Amino acid sequence: MSTHGELKEIAWKANRELPASGLVIQTFGNASAFDRRRGVFAIKPSGVPFKALAAEDMVIVDLESRVVEGKLRPSSDTKTHAVLYRAWHDIGGIVHTHSLYASAWAQAMEPIPVLGTTHADYLAQDIPCTDVMNDEMVKGDYEEETGHQILKTFATLSHKEVEMVLVACHGPFTWGNSAEKALENSIMLEQIAHMAYLALQINPDTPRLKRSLLRKHYERKHGPEAYYGQYDDTSAPRKTT
Amino acid sequence: MSTHGELKEIAWKANRELPASGLVIQTFGNASAFDRRRGVFAIKPSGVPFKALAAEDMVIVDLESRVVEGKLRPSSDTKTHAVLYRAWHDIGGIVHTHSLYASAWAQAMEPIPVLGTTHADYLAQDIPCTDVMNDEMVKGDYEEETGHQILKTFATLSHKEVEMVLVACHGPFTWGNSAEKALENSIMLEQIAHMAYLALQINPDTPRLKRSLLRKHYERKHGPEAYYGQYDDTSAPRKTT
Amino acid sequence: MSTHGELKEIAWKANRELPASGLVIQTFGNASAFDRRRGVFAIKPSGVPFKALAAEDMVIVDLESRVVEGKLRPSSDTKTHAVLYRAWHDIGGIVHTHSLYASAWAQAMEPIPVLGTTHADYLAQDIPCTDVMNDEMVKGDYEEETGHQILKTFATLSHKEVEMVLVACHGPFTWGNSAEKALENSIMLEQIAHMAYLALQINPDTPRLKRSLLRKHYERKHGPEAYYGQYDDTSAPRKTT
Amino acid sequence: MSTHGELKEIAWKANRELPASGLVIQTFGNASAFDRRRGVFAIKPSGVPFKALAAEDMVIVDLESRVVEGKLRPSSDTKTHAVLYRAWHDIGGIVHTHSLYASAWAQAMEPIPVLGTTHADYLAQDIPCTDVMNDEMVKGDYEEETGHQILKTFATLSHKEVEMVLVACHGPFTWGNSAEKALENSIMLEQIAHMAYLALQINPDTPRLKRSLLRKHYERKHGPEAYYGQYDDTSAPRKTT
Repeated sequence: MSTHGELKEIAWKANRELPASGLVIQTFGNASAFDRRRGVFAIKPSGVPFKALAAEDMVIVDLESRVVEGKLRPSSDTKTHAVLYRAWHDIGGIVHTHSLYASAWAQAMEPIPVLGTTHADYLAQDIPCTDVMNDEMVKGDYEEETGHQILKTFATLSHKEVEMVLVACHGPFTWGNSAEKALENSIMLEQIAHMAYLALQINPDTPRLKRSLLRKHYERKHGPEAYYGQYDDTSAPRKTT
Repeated sequence: MSTHGELKEIAWKANRELPASGLVIQTFGNASAFDRRRGVFAIKPSGVPFKALAAEDMVIVDLESRVVEGKLRPSSDTKTHAVLYRAWHDIGGIVHTHSLYASAWAQAMEPIPVLGTTHADYLAQDIPCTDVMNDEMVKGDYEEETGHQILKTFATLSHKEVEMVLVACHGPFTWGNSAEKALENSIMLEQIAHMAYLALQINPDTPRLKRSLLRKHYERKHGPEAYYGQYDDTSAPRKTT
Repeated sequence: MSTHGELKEIAWKANRELPASGLVIQTFGNASAFDRRRGVFAIKPSGVPFKALAAEDMVIVDLESRVVEGKLRPSSDTKTHAVLYRAWHDIGGIVHTHSLYASAWAQAMEPIPVLGTTHADYLAQDIPCTDVMNDEMVKGDYEEETGHQILKTFATLSHKEVEMVLVACHGPFTWGNSAEKALENSIMLEQIAHMAYLALQINPDTPRLKRSLLRKHYERKHGPEAYYGQYDDTSAPRKTT
Repeated sequence: MSTHGELKEIAWKANRELPASGLVIQTFGNASAFDRRRGVFAIKPSGVPFKALAAEDMVIVDLESRVVEGKLRPSSDTKTHAVLYRAWHDIGGIVHTHSLYASAWAQAMEPIPVLGTTHADYLAQDIPCTDVMNDEMVKGDYEEETGHQILKTFATLSHKEVEMVLVACHGPFTWGNSAEKALENSIMLEQIAHMAYLALQINPDTPRLKRSLLRKHYERKHGPEAYYGQYDDTSAPRKTT
């Protein structure tokens, strides 16, 4: 019996939700769940259709991307996940998709501007887009370099305040204190990307949300005085103290 | 046993329909139902996922937003609902969503122009958009001020003839003589917002509906001589006499 | 027992498909089926939600729009149907919707240009849009005049070759040799309207389909030498001889 | 009992998936499966609704488009399939649809530029669009000429590296080493067409994917050193050696 049964279960549930939530088709996308104590994470096997997935099939990998347990080859994006878990010990899950609107923004190589309170309920700034990787990085250890490209983008950003990024020309990665929260962030990123797309089609000069509204919405959900959600709700109002 | 069982049931049914009708995802959005006689309303608890909601969970709140009955914290938008119920005694329900097209128009800070008869079947003018709140209002009692911002927009409009509004940078609020009617208005607002978006993409110079057509469609459904719907249908042809 | 049971059944089936096919929400839209021999048609009652409809509820109306059988008030668009049945004895059904893309084109007051073979498989020219009605017509017998406005548009068009029209500022009407065929035309009109919308967003200068391709696709389905569909298929290859 | 039972079953499964995957409505679209050894293929009968289809109904046709087995008339596009099977003996299935975004690009007569890694995961260049057929071809053996028009487009392209094409003014054809793979290519083409559409709406100057990224993504899935998918997975990493 697996010593990582629970971790596999958590990763599997997040992966299973990806097609159900309309974020991925075919074998695109992957979710992982991190066990901080043991220093391993469970991730989707590569190229396996979602409907054929069982919790058993999740691959347990260490922070150097070496398979610890599992019969299948892990996701080709495993090294990107590993880089982020190594750098950010306090996250518990990562989700990568090729969802339509977020990927379109990534292909357009533009950050998603914060235009409304739906966005501000999740993060208090634009959703960043990485630079395009240079040719050496692409030809080198590509998936590892994808992780480094993300870290570079967060040199001056907090990964606790901004739990999502667009990898230029590619698609979104999101994370959170659990795989479930990372999944929620992927779902919301797609919604925010869609809404910003529409607002800019209606009015190409739509200005960014003013600072007071931006802080208000972010703080009422995530600030030390957060009052959104229930008092005993550990997942909803993330205190940043 | 609750003295507000029926009211909770009504509010719960409207809330339950929000994700089913495609208007909200995650915990966004809320519906409330007003008991005019008792001066209280039932509203969704804050941050609780819709699929986990039971009629029991609805929170009963008075017009000063004080919890009268219920174990959960009411929606963070409760004060906005209370302001509207205090000002407009003749409405019976309010719905707030972040539906995609209506929210995109709100982010673009533009009223939705009346371009066709689908719109005119519901209201005989543009769907208004509030001004952006000033910083003092945002930093003050924000949700209460959101209500006042809506009332300000209706200083020269009838809330019986226009049962919907876009709160700038945020999203739509709708109301009606019942929670069910408020929900119908939210569904139609999203449809009208979508249709106007498409028409203006096809022809950015699409003119507003001419006055005669506008009055005709509105009056045949809502005027004193309304002939849409069934004779004994209390909900459909709203007589404004 | 009704003498019009079969006719009601046919009309009911077409109405029931309207929300299922995504063409209507709420109580918008209506389908009717014509009994040429008896000179009556069955039509949806006004303002009744589709899910509550039973075949029984269909209203039987004569060509002067007088109720012949039925307890409910017929659709407010009944007179428009009657005008078309009076003028075009050889049609068997009419469908009216407020489907999103077709209505957006109608609001933009533009005919849908024939840009591809999907369109040409159904008709060999642009989908016409009526002129906007003048104020006297609107203030007069509005629904009757809507029918006349459609007939005016077909003064130089064959209603057998073009089984659909956009009523300016309003939405589409389609017809066919049966209610089922009228419904199919409504579904295809929405698809064609969507596809033309997208093509013109990709390339605003997309030219009309060249004449040889247009005739080829139309003729292989509808011409005297039609070879699309099965030999014994009475509905698919409509011979125009 | 049929000697082609298995082939019919394969073709039927692919056809059945067409409406389920949202690629076709009504009777549009068709899938075929090729039996290289016997030199015949199974294809959808013409104009039959997808939900009424049984595996039995598939028509067995030889490479000259003569019916070998089956009571129904084969798809009107049969000759196009036959031309491709004659020219490309190494493919096992073909799918034709009128899916919305791919058909819109075809109507706009523009190849779909490679803008991101989702596209590059499937092919390392733009998705080609044929020239518009000249009038003689249209008036001649139209469906046969459609095949030749596709072959002309592939005069300087590998049909193993590019398994999809837009037929100008019409819609997409895709193929692969099996009918199932051809279907997957149709699904991905629609996704890629949609994503490119959105990216160019966001930024009309979105540049093509740089060559290093393009090769990287294509090679990791399809190159001799492919490492996407499972080791024993015969369908996923297509080796091109």
